[in-house]
Amino acid sequence: MFDNKEKTNIEELGEFGLINYLTKNIQLVQKSTVKGVGDDAAVLNAEGKRVLVSTDMLLEGIHFDLAYTPLKHLGYKAIQVNLSDIYAMNGKAEQVTVSIGMSSKFPLEAIEELYEGIYLACEKYSVDLVGGDTTSSKQGLVISVTSIGYADEKDIVYRNGAEEGDLICVSGDLGGAYIGLQLLEREKQIYLENPKIQPDLEGKDYIVERQLKPEARGDIIDLLKEIDVKPTSMIDVSDGLASELLHICKQSNKGCNLYEEKIPLDPMTFETAREFNLDPTVCALSGGEDYELLFTVKQADYDKIKFKMDITIIGYITEPAAGCNLVTKGGAVHPLKAQGWNAFKSGE
Amino acid sequence: MFDNKEKTNIEELGEFGLINYLTKNIQLVQKSTVKGVGDDAAVLNAEGKRVLVSTDMLLEGIHFDLAYTPLKHLGYKAIQVNLSDIYAMNGKAEQVTVSIGMSSKFPLEAIEELYEGIYLACEKYSVDLVGGDTTSSKQGLVISVTSIGYADEKDIVYRNGAEEGDLICVSGDLGGAYIGLQLLEREKQIYLENPKIQPDLEGKDYIVERQLKPEARGDIIDLLKEIDVKPTSMIDVSDGLASELLHICKQSNKGCNLYEEKIPLDPMTFETAREFNLDPTVCALSGGEDYELLFTVKQADYDKIKFKMDITIIGYITEPAAGCNLVTKGGAVHPLKAQGWNAFKSGE
Repeated sequence: MFDNKEKTNIEELGEFGLINYLTKNIQLVQKSTVKGVGDDAAVLNAEGKRVLVSTDMLLEGIHFDLAYTPLKHLGYKAIQVNLSDIYAMNGKAEQVTVSIGMSSKFPLEAIEELYEGIYLACEKYSVDLVGGDTTSSKQGLVISVTSIGYADEKDIVYRNGAEEGDLICVSGDLGGAYIGLQLLEREKQIYLENPKIQPDLEGKDYIVERQLKPEARGDIIDLLKEIDVKPTSMIDVSDGLASELLHICKQSNKGCNLYEEKIPLDPMTFETAREFNLDPTVCALSGGEDYELLFTVKQADYDKIKFKMDITIIGYITEPAAGCNLVTKGGAVHPLKAQGWNAFKSGE
Repeated sequence: MFDNKEKTNIEELGEFGLINYLTKNIQLVQKSTVKGVGDDAAVLNAEGKRVLVSTDMLLEGIHFDLAYTPLKHLGYKAIQVNLSDIYAMNGKAEQVTVSIGMSSKFPLEAIEELYEGIYLACEKYSVDLVGGDTTSSKQGLVISVTSIGYADEKDIVYRNGAEEGDLICVSGDLGGAYIGLQLLEREKQIYLENPKIQPDLEGKDYIVERQLKPEARGDIIDLLKEIDVKPTSMIDVSDGLASELLHICKQSNKGCNLYEEKIPLDPMTFETAREFNLDPTVCALSGGEDYELLFTVKQADYDKIKFKMDITIIGYITEPAAGCNLVTKGGAVHPLKAQGWNAFKSGE
C-alpha cells in the first residue's frame, strides 16, 4: 500500500505534464527504436526480422489488489507478463507501450512508484518504453501493456508445431504464484478482521515474490539458443500448466502424457499448499501466473537439455487419439482438464 | 443503450470461449500479417518498412457514456482514434490489437455489438485485428487499442519538422465533435429529468456522428501521396486545434500565426455552438476529438493543395521569437493557448 503523506496533485500537472514528467529520463537502448515517446506513434526498425506483438490488460480488483500489491511490484509485473508472451514465440522483446488509467486523486508519488517498477523491468530486460497513454479513471487502476519483439522467421516457435514423441519441457517450477496469492489473501482477511495483527509472511519470500514480482524467462530463450535447441512448440504458463498444455495439444492436433511426479514444485510451494489443504499438483496444473515457458522438443535434443538445471521434462506428445492425459504418482491415468478458477477454488 | 432482453451469459463461455466466438470470422487482408489471433503474439512482416506503433485507452465515464453511445459506434470509434495516430505519421495502418475489460454481467449480445463496430472499422480501413485480451472488469467498460502501421523511412512525418514560412493546413472541419457532445449531454440531462421526453437530435446528424462515429483521415494521406506533397510536420487533432498546433510549434521550435477566419467550421457546428452560447472558434480550438489531420507544407507546395476541397490553409509558421498567435477576425493578435476542458467549460 502506498503512503499518502506527501501528495502532489496530478490534476495540476495535466496529462501532457504528467507524461513529460514520467518519461523525461527515458534512455533508449535498442537499435530497433527509431523514435520513442513524443510523437503520434513510435517508429521501429525491424531490420528484416519478423515483428511480434502481444498485449495484456491488468485491472484493479480482477488482476491485482492494491491492499497487498506494492505499486512498484505491480509496474514490474505488468511488463513481465507481456515480455513473457514474446519469449513464448522464441523472440527477443525490445519495446513496450504502457497505458495507465488512474483516479485523478492518485498522488503523483504513487504513479512514480508504479513507473519505477515499469522502468526497472524495462532496464533489467533491455526493453524500451516507446509510447502509451495516461488518462484519469473513475474506476480504479487500469494498466494495458503492449510488447513488441523480433525474431528471424525461421526461429519463431508457434503453439501448433508439437509432433508425436516430442518431449514436453517446462522451465522453473510451478504453482508458486498461486499459492503465494492464497497466502496474501489470507493475511489480508486477517488484517481486515483485526488491523492490529501484522501480516505474517516470514520465510515465505519465494512464493510471495512469485505472485507479486514474476520474472519472464528470457534467460531460457537465450539458453535454448546457446545449446542450439529450437522447440517444436511453445507457450507461456499464465493460466496453469493444464490449460497451456491443452492449448499446445489442441493447436498441434496431438495428445500427451503428463507425469504428475515430474511436475517441478518448489518445496515452499509444496509445504504451503499442504498448509492450505490444497493439492500441490492442482496448484501447478490450474494455478496460473507462473510465467514459466512450456515447450516441446524433439527426442533428438534430449542430450542437449537433460542436464539443464532449470528445465524439467514432464511428459511427451502422443497421437491425438490417445487424448491428453495426466499420469498420477500412483500410475492412474486421468484425462487432463483445464480447471477454471471457480472449480479450482471449490477445494479440488 | 443496448437491450438486455436476449441475454447470453458470458461467464459460461469463459475467456477462451469468448475469444474464439468473437474472432472466429476474422479474415486477414494484409500481406504484412503473418499470424493473427491464436498464439502468444501476432507475427508481422514489415517488409523493409519502418513499423509505427500507437496505443490509446478508452474508459467508461471518462471517454464515453453508455447512456448515449451505441456500443457499435464505440467499437468503431475506438479503432478510428488509433488509426488516426498512424495516419498522423504519414503511415499506412495495417493491424490493431484490442483489449476489452467488461463486467461479466455484460450480455454476449452487447459484446457482439461492440465487436461489430470494431470489425466494421477494420474492414472499411483494411486493417487486421491480430490480437488482444478479454477480461472481466469490476469497473465498467475498458477498451485499449494498439495500432500498427508501416511507412518507408523517408516518408515518415514527425511533429518537429515545421520550418519558418511553411503553410499550416487542416483537413475537414473542426469543433463538430465537441458540439455534438454538448448536444448529447443536454439530451441526456433532459431525459434524466423526464424520461418521457425523447431525445431531440433531429437534423443534427452530422455533429452527433462527428462525436460518436469519427472517421480517421487515411484518405488525406492517400491524397497527399497522390499530389506528391510530403508535409513537413503532422499531428492528428484529438485534443483541439490549439493544443495540437502548439505541439508542432514547440517540437519544431517555431512560432505561428493562426487566422481565426480561416478555421474550417461546418455550418451546423457554428449554429449549434451559438445555440449553446459557445464561441464556435473556441469549440474548434479547444474542443478536441475531431480526428482531422493538422500539418504543415512548404510554400512551394501551395499550388498543389490550394484547390483541394478538404484541406484548408489556416496560417503559417514563423520564427520562434514571434510566438504562437491567433489573429482574430477583427485583426487582434492573441497568444494561442491550449485551454483545458475545465477552463473551456467555464463558459469562455
